[in-house]
Amino acid sequence: MIEFSSLLLQHAVSELARLPGIGNKTALRLALHLLKEDGTRTEALTRALLKMKSDILLCKKCHNISDSDMCTICANPRRDENILCVVEDMRDVMAIERTACFNGLYHVLGGVINPVEGISPNDLNIVSLIERIENNDIQEVILALPATIEGDTTNFYIFRKLKEKTIRITTISKGVAIGDALEYADEITLGRSILNRTAFEMKK
Amino acid sequence: MIEFSSLLLQHAVSELARLPGIGNKTALRLALHLLKEDGTRTEALTRALLKMKSDILLCKKCHNISDSDMCTICANPRRDENILCVVEDMRDVMAIERTACFNGLYHVLGGVINPVEGISPNDLNIVSLIERIENNDIQEVILALPATIEGDTTNFYIFRKLKEKTIRITTISKGVAIGDALEYADEITLGRSILNRTAFEMKK
Repeated sequence: MIEFSSLLLQHAVSELARLPGIGNKTALRLALHLLKEDGTRTEALTRALLKMKSDILLCKKCHNISDSDMCTICANPRRDENILCVVEDMRDVMAIERTACFNGLYHVLGGVINPVEGISPNDLNIVSLIERIENNDIQEVILALPATIEGDTTNFYIFRKLKEKTIRITTISKGVAIGDALEYADEITLGRSILNRTAFEMKK
Repeated sequence: MIEFSSLLLQHAVSELARLPGIGNKTALRLALHLLKEDGTRTEALTRALLKMKSDILLCKKCHNISDSDMCTICANPRRDENILCVVEDMRDVMAIERTACFNGLYHVLGGVINPVEGISPNDLNIVSLIERIENNDIQEVILALPATIEGDTTNFYIFRKLKEKTIRITTISKGVAIGDALEYADEITLGRSILNRTAFEMKK
């Protein structure tokens, strides 16, 4: 327990310590840092946070975070409109964008089905996904959900909804991470990587 | 480099990433956390930070951070007014308070003498320390500055200013940390702990 000589400081520290991964000691360091810096830095920080919180929108097509009602990816005419990548949240969009391996559009579910936490298909952007597939010329849906039971459940739920339609449904490959030694891969991943082995290709 | 679909988010993340010890990935996690939570949490955080920044004062006696012009320690009639502990900054006050081993008053210098960074005695609360010692019945001054060259320089500077006065001047002991094995102590600390050895006392 940290003793404070100032309630104002204590209050600021306890608010900072509510952030994920920020403990009391880090919160104190951050608060003292802001106290030492000139006043405009704290103002700039708080203004940016409040503005983000009040003005940010969700893209009405893919539900990604956006500054207008159409995100920069959906609005980009050079993206392939026929491939849709279904992800859990916007961090996954960023992660896939960083690979530079995908040029289609995204659909952000906003979570995965999780009965324990009470997240049902109706809480996710699945209805809009089906509508989007029905109303556009989508040829492939890539399911890029987490490799967990909840992710698999959601994959299966979406697959059942789409199986009548004449589109290709794929999931991202699971297996040993590139650069990893086999002995460090867990048994389930290594087992899956053997069951799902692919034909060897010589790189030219 | 993280790609953002929202400039508002990007701006919030870059402001958060200016805080010490907060990198881009952590800043993104914090921003997305605030986005998910309901609006009042971000407001409470920003209000607490702005209020701390605008309303916090320094105790006019000891220069510790305070909500009024006299801090709770200086205002406490049960503290021993005859012993003064000189520290670098308010974090040191908190650290010493947590030990519950000191019942005197503090004097916060606001730094230590550091020619490389251009911090001279005039930038520190040394004049007010001397005045405080001259105008009050102080019997002992404990120098609790960091065990660095800068701390030692400051110790020596204050010692020279005070050596004419009939007060006891002490420094906190340096040596092997309690609970530490000798082999892990650095040579300088271990050497000092031998030179500054104290008479062995049986605990009853």
